[in-house]
Amino acid sequence: MADQDLEQILAEIRRGTDEIILEEDLRRKLASGRPLRIKAGFDPTAPDLHFGHTVLINKLRQFQDLGHQVVFLIGDFTGMIGDPSGKSATRPPLTREQVKANAETYKEQVFKILDPAKTEVRFNSEWMDELGAAGLIRLASQYTVARMLERDDFDKRYKGGQPIAIHEFLYPLIQGYDSVALKADVEFGGTDQKFNLLMGRTLQKHYEQEPQVCITVPILEGLDGVQKMSKSLGNYIGVTDAPGEMFRKLLSVPDELVWRYFELLSLKPLAEIAALKAEVEAGMSPQEAKKVLAAELITRFHDAAAAEAAPRSAGNQIGLGDIPENLPELEVSAGEDGSLRLLDLLREAGLAQSGKAAKDMLARGVVYVDGAQAAPDLTLSRGEVRVVQAGKKKIARVRVI
Amino acid sequence: MADQDLEQILAEIRRGTDEIILEEDLRRKLASGRPLRIKAGFDPTAPDLHFGHTVLINKLRQFQDLGHQVVFLIGDFTGMIGDPSGKSATRPPLTREQVKANAETYKEQVFKILDPAKTEVRFNSEWMDELGAAGLIRLASQYTVARMLERDDFDKRYKGGQPIAIHEFLYPLIQGYDSVALKADVEFGGTDQKFNLLMGRTLQKHYEQEPQVCITVPILEGLDGVQKMSKSLGNYIGVTDAPGEMFRKLLSVPDELVWRYFELLSLKPLAEIAALKAEVEAGMSPQEAKKVLAAELITRFHDAAAAEAAPRSAGNQIGLGDIPENLPELEVSAGEDGSLRLLDLLREAGLAQSGKAAKDMLARGVVYVDGAQAAPDLTLSRGEVRVVQAGKKKIARVRVI
Repeated sequence: MADQDLEQILAEIRRGTDEIILEEDLRRKLASGRPLRIKAGFDPTAPDLHFGHTVLINKLRQFQDLGHQVVFLIGDFTGMIGDPSGKSATRPPLTREQVKANAETYKEQVFKILDPAKTEVRFNSEWMDELGAAGLIRLASQYTVARMLERDDFDKRYKGGQPIAIHEFLYPLIQGYDSVALKADVEFGGTDQKFNLLMGRTLQKHYEQEPQVCITVPILEGLDGVQKMSKSLGNYIGVTDAPGEMFRKLLSVPDELVWRYFELLSLKPLAEIAALKAEVEAGMSPQEAKKVLAAELITRFHDAAAAEAAPRSAGNQIGLGDIPENLPELEVSAGEDGSLRLLDLLREAGLAQSGKAAKDMLARGVVYVDGAQAAPDLTLSRGEVRVVQAGKKKIARVRVI
Repeated sequence: MADQDLEQILAEIRRGTDEIILEEDLRRKLASGRPLRIKAGFDPTAPDLHFGHTVLINKLRQFQDLGHQVVFLIGDFTGMIGDPSGKSATRPPLTREQVKANAETYKEQVFKILDPAKTEVRFNSEWMDELGAAGLIRLASQYTVARMLERDDFDKRYKGGQPIAIHEFLYPLIQGYDSVALKADVEFGGTDQKFNLLMGRTLQKHYEQEPQVCITVPILEGLDGVQKMSKSLGNYIGVTDAPGEMFRKLLSVPDELVWRYFELLSLKPLAEIAALKAEVEAGMSPQEAKKVLAAELITRFHDAAAAEAAPRSAGNQIGLGDIPENLPELEVSAGEDGSLRLLDLLREAGLAQSGKAAKDMLARGVVYVDGAQAAPDLTLSRGEVRVVQAGKKKIARVRVI
């Protein structure tokens, strides 16, 4: 590879990353010309990806486009342990079936970005089950307590008198050992993963492998522009969000965050983004730039037609409790006793796709009858005519017959 | 059991122990009348027991005499790992065959004290192999880093900046888990084992078992009266030492240590020992007391006849370099060239049992020729007559023919 090409590739790799340790190792690995093994680990418990995750996945895609192999590692071994102390009900151990199902969900989502032909999906239970207690002891002998306590969060907790359970010292070692088992050349992770990524380097040296290059990517801010994007904070855009939803959310991003989103989420050349920025600086509305980004992302996660239609569908929502004019009337049959549970009505009127979906919506309080939130156990009687709304998309005037 | 009996039993148990945690738990367990499971763990790498080990084994015997079951646990699981970092050549991993052979050696030695019918010999690999890496992680989740660092030696090393490898945190957990697996009622250990014994209590509570009573026994001082008895310090009496050797060593014990040795090694009633002490205080030589102890211990590890003969055989040694009078003369043939290596002479004259033994003695510098230490490569010539001494037991006047 010509030196100039290599430098150009390195510049592209640097985009949207936080740190590359060590860049000279990466340069040497890239110069070798062999396909590199690019590792990224994922939590098997939460297969719903949001745009925050795609910052890293985009980088993986970039390596695939350069001819390298991505190893999408699902950390099922610890997932199947759950909370090992058994104290936390919120982290129940996953079964092998759940892990498999979650892996399928991951694949569906990541293959919107990654090339399946250059992606190896692996599970660390493959080697961890085999390692045994003796193997884990050998692994633990490779690292000292003092060095482990240097990890930022451990250091803070230890000094702050907060408990650290001993198994927490084993998890970074397992993550590092995954790199040994996979013979990883590069590992990607968020900036908060730096210590664990470096563990891979350390252990690979012990196992006489060439140490992996650790690349950290920044944590994406959520729609509020302040906190990191996270499902639990509700400031996220899911990769499975509907086109209209993506459009609406992207247009709600604070103006000052647009270029950060472009840098981390768009695959457009930097020059193109710079040109757009110049236009905004020259007076174009930032909303126009957001629309350009939305079009690219909706095309990626849905398709071009969806991107085209998104601005309309984004507007197509009905505020909960709002009743549009001229609603068509549907007829739904009551039971033999002349009554009809709202639960059944939702499904029969096509306002919910299944009994379960209807139940969910009732539980979430997004079902409105005549503009007022409906009790989950509401029952209607033959002859009643009601406007029934299920979420922001579906509404109908229903006559019980 | 009558309260008075129980109190008398407790008093006997207290003898020669350092700490009983908790004595009220022990009282309750003893009062239950069921046979208790009395655990003691042994290192599978060093099956040669010395008198220091018997302090603890005597206590086990005492429990057997009270009708309880001793569990003699051989920690083979970690023994088969050896030094897990692979850095120390001095702790090579044991094979399953070596563990078995060492266990046989242990049995030969401990059954001089313990009743085989009330002794269960177990290996912790039985449950540790099965536990797996996942089980070890669950175990490690039961204890915190901060509490582990409270262990005396960890605390000193951590504060002193000396490395503690992470697997060292796992070993006390494994020792504790052994108590869970064995459902131990009581565990014995040296005072340096207190932390690890208490780990058994902690983990048994987690596993909803009645916590074991931890009994520590003091560390016996060696023949120098200062350092702990240890093979590597050379200040020990081995349970397989010859009767004369035991006698000689016991009589060399510093006078002020005699009563300590009586307390910890003798099974004589305390009243009898007190009477002996009174006699010494009234003017009897402490050597006489040592002879009483020697008689008891030689009888235990050999037999009464050996104890009777021991003073004579102890006197049968020849100081290195001393030449007794009236030595008989042996004839040993030189080779065809008229010379004879000292190495070969030792074997042929019956002063060494094998060529290897001869080589060892030469290397250790315990071969003397005409009263002077001999060079390992010494060669004699036909016609020479020399007094050759090999160790403290064998000496002969040899003529090379």
